[in-house]
Amino acid sequence: MGKIICAGLGPGDPDLISVRADRAIRAARQIAYFRKAGRPGQARRIVADLLAPGVVEHAMEYPVTTEIPFASPEYNRLLSAFYDDWTARLAALARESDVVVLCEGDPLFYGSFMHLHSRLQDIAEVEVIPGIPGMTGCWNAIGRPMTWGDDAMTVLMGTLSEPDLTRHMQAAEALVVMKTGRNLPKIARALAAAGRIADAWLVERGTMPNQRVTPLSQADLDACPYFATVLVHGNGRRPLADAAE
Amino acid sequence: MGKIICAGLGPGDPDLISVRADRAIRAARQIAYFRKAGRPGQARRIVADLLAPGVVEHAMEYPVTTEIPFASPEYNRLLSAFYDDWTARLAALARESDVVVLCEGDPLFYGSFMHLHSRLQDIAEVEVIPGIPGMTGCWNAIGRPMTWGDDAMTVLMGTLSEPDLTRHMQAAEALVVMKTGRNLPKIARALAAAGRIADAWLVERGTMPNQRVTPLSQADLDACPYFATVLVHGNGRRPLADAAE
Repeated sequence: MGKIICAGLGPGDPDLISVRADRAIRAARQIAYFRKAGRPGQARRIVADLLAPGVVEHAMEYPVTTEIPFASPEYNRLLSAFYDDWTARLAALARESDVVVLCEGDPLFYGSFMHLHSRLQDIAEVEVIPGIPGMTGCWNAIGRPMTWGDDAMTVLMGTLSEPDLTRHMQAAEALVVMKTGRNLPKIARALAAAGRIADAWLVERGTMPNQRVTPLSQADLDACPYFATVLVHGNGRRPLADAAE
Repeated sequence: MGKIICAGLGPGDPDLISVRADRAIRAARQIAYFRKAGRPGQARRIVADLLAPGVVEHAMEYPVTTEIPFASPEYNRLLSAFYDDWTARLAALARESDVVVLCEGDPLFYGSFMHLHSRLQDIAEVEVIPGIPGMTGCWNAIGRPMTWGDDAMTVLMGTLSEPDLTRHMQAAEALVVMKTGRNLPKIARALAAAGRIADAWLVERGTMPNQRVTPLSQADLDACPYFATVLVHGNGRRPLADAAE
């Protein structure tokens, strides 16, 4: 009887995987990972140099990604059946030996594995190994502190409506917007409405060899990959030699 | 000529340090870490089993922690002089060999190292290795997904005023409150005012051997360590077999 080990991969650089996850991935006899159909998959690419010879691979290909709206009944039906199916398959595979499921970032933070995690309760033994969230890799790619002192930080999904984005942006100090891609023009309008666009950065493929860091005001809003991240730094209280107070 | 390497240690379990930071810590000939005067220091404790024999240690002891208010001129003066002093000392030490500065969590996310990082610009070569933020360790300690679908997540410092806490809590879906400790009664009042207290968790020493996870409604509000974290999970959109939509 094996178990299902979900290994958080962190933001993309394999050297930023945790010691525990690195060990689990190198020892794995079976791995599984999500990917868009017909693509190699980002998770698989991150671990390319870590896998043991002869590892058995299970590619979990989404039946749909951005082709139909998230909120539609059809999207819900397709994804729900997909997660149900892989829950049963992974539980069966784990009866033979451990299965290591690869998840970018941290598995419990907006990750696809969460949909398996909740379905696997009481069906199989599951262990989750935390990872550095993608956003943490992105603010490290910029190389400036993200938050100071009492700063409030808000994490938003670019899939939110423009009024919701604007409202949250007005209330936040430090700001992260994930799921950008085709939502970037809307995100930029919301940032402008909230008075934050001049301080915003766009980070594409943070911590990966081809990472790109651009002030948002200079970015091409119509050519943004889905997993780029928009960041606005906090600017809170800190001890300074020339502080006024 | 060496450099200053700030190694993010993650939430507390040494097995959750990144492969790169683990390697830097094991190879270090000089380390430096912050601690409260007279205490061993949490960062030093995390790496206890990783250090090479003969490593030279530099304990950077805060001149003050919670004894005087953060916002007072005296606090600002003492801390600013402390960071100035260690900036000069680390830069001098790095002229001989690399100095590995140990930082809990992620160094650029509410970390003390940021005060050295900004002062060290143009004085020494600095490399920052990201870490798993403490809050990520805490939601993994609870073992439930933190955020779903379009959830907005807000990170707050318990040092904020009660009206500010309440206002942010009302706008957020998933919620993290750090710097709890003696602020916990105030945080609990703000959560109650925002209608979120029934869903809140208190995580003390997340991912460490003596971690404790308690529904906040059952916690002793007057006996909370400073680095405990309060979490409220998001509950957003997800594909479910029985979804109404």
